[in-house]
Amino acid sequence: MNKSYKERFERILEEYLNAYPVKLSPVWDAVVYAVTAGGKRVRPTLAYMGAKIAGGDCEKADKVALGVEFIHNYSLIHDDLPCMDNDDLRRGRPTVHKAFGEGTAVLAGDALLNMAFECVSGEGKAAKYIAVQSGMRGMVGGQCLDLANSSNAGVEGESRLDEINSLKTSALFKASLAGGAIAGGADDKLVTALEEYADCLGKVFQIVDDILDAQSSAEVLGKSVGQDVKNGKVTYVSLLGLDKAKEKAKAINEAGKAALAGISGAEELLTLADSLLSRVK
Amino acid sequence: MNKSYKERFERILEEYLNAYPVKLSPVWDAVVYAVTAGGKRVRPTLAYMGAKIAGGDCEKADKVALGVEFIHNYSLIHDDLPCMDNDDLRRGRPTVHKAFGEGTAVLAGDALLNMAFECVSGEGKAAKYIAVQSGMRGMVGGQCLDLANSSNAGVEGESRLDEINSLKTSALFKASLAGGAIAGGADDKLVTALEEYADCLGKVFQIVDDILDAQSSAEVLGKSVGQDVKNGKVTYVSLLGLDKAKEKAKAINEAGKAALAGISGAEELLTLADSLLSRVK
Repeated sequence: MNKSYKERFERILEEYLNAYPVKLSPVWDAVVYAVTAGGKRVRPTLAYMGAKIAGGDCEKADKVALGVEFIHNYSLIHDDLPCMDNDDLRRGRPTVHKAFGEGTAVLAGDALLNMAFECVSGEGKAAKYIAVQSGMRGMVGGQCLDLANSSNAGVEGESRLDEINSLKTSALFKASLAGGAIAGGADDKLVTALEEYADCLGKVFQIVDDILDAQSSAEVLGKSVGQDVKNGKVTYVSLLGLDKAKEKAKAINEAGKAALAGISGAEELLTLADSLLSRVK
Repeated sequence: MNKSYKERFERILEEYLNAYPVKLSPVWDAVVYAVTAGGKRVRPTLAYMGAKIAGGDCEKADKVALGVEFIHNYSLIHDDLPCMDNDDLRRGRPTVHKAFGEGTAVLAGDALLNMAFECVSGEGKAAKYIAVQSGMRGMVGGQCLDLANSSNAGVEGESRLDEINSLKTSALFKASLAGGAIAGGADDKLVTALEEYADCLGKVFQIVDDILDAQSSAEVLGKSVGQDVKNGKVTYVSLLGLDKAKEKAKAINEAGKAALAGISGAEELLTLADSLLSRVK
């Protein structure tokens, strides 16, 4: 991953949080706790890369970068709740509801989703695109299917799992990359190519997550492992086994890279795809 | 209340829900259950009145009307959760988490907040205004203070309660009325007057809520009564007693009406203020 985008984002985030005019405890503390816990900042990086490949500078994607990272963090806080995935550990620390209580966690997630739209709602076309990708037609839809998956009621096999991951992970990757590109002035053809790439990238990201959940340790990942088995979730590893899951990730990664054929300035996106495929946390 | 606005909203809402392209059960069912349970539609009515007084037609405020009603409903679903107010009854029926389970209720709220921004994010200046009023600087901020109120940790008296209600209720009234007015083309002077009126209207609405919670019955209200006492909440009734609470509501109502002095076409807003003061449910 390109470090300069992450560094820019950390600076922009710090400035945004410092300047925020109303900071009500304990919900504000929970918001800050969640969004400053590190993380890879994949989505802001995608937003910046989107603006750059569209010919814009990073500044054009700052608000999109903040928005998609806030959306990502609200979804993690709500996903971790006892009534959802019931997770205790995230990025090496207690989850928000463990540290601050459930009521504060619900409100911190709500506050973050509102903050996301405070950031992006001046961005016109990109704002609408992000709202669609983060809602029932996108990420929330994926969480709906995932909730059914947890209760073993909704998963029939690999194609269903592809659909869940496309909505749950790829939709916000699309919001980030194509949202950043739209903010940077991209035309429709570029947006379509970036959407296809981001869809593949999100699927690869999720397959690698499944593999790491089965193979890695809480020390390396900073979050609980073996959760999928514990929650009775169907994953690529449980469906295909480790080797075939890895093969599938590689194949989708190549398809994603192929979607960028003929797009100039795509080098850093191609490198990003490979780095997310080979990530160990 | 002007019935034609409510009727228009019910029609627009039905069309929107019918046309929504992705309907994933059970979360979608919970969304429909929540938003079609009736209710007074105060916020959509305010949005339409805002557009009208700004010289626009109702159509200009349709998306704002949908957005603010979705925001209102998401906040009710999350507020009713066991980790928040723990309410079983809303609009004469089981609350969403009672009918669909907690995980589905969390996601239905999230879906609604995203839907709200799908609706308003094409509205430019109104979208940003609504996002600010619904977030930490507005409604969510009020819920933060209210959560502290529930645990008796944050309320020092009447001025604190005024602050909670201004954020918790008035902010979304402002989003509705001034948001509709902005969408209808209002100038800054009109927006400022409408904000002041809406701030008063929200406070009156909340004081009347406190009075009804102490005085009315679940049969009339369609929601649990005596909840404030049960949850140990400081309310206007517990602070001031019934008579003084009623006097306060009347005085704020007059102040709200006074904020509209010299604004032409304000008659229906003046009537609305009186009807919300004298409401019995």
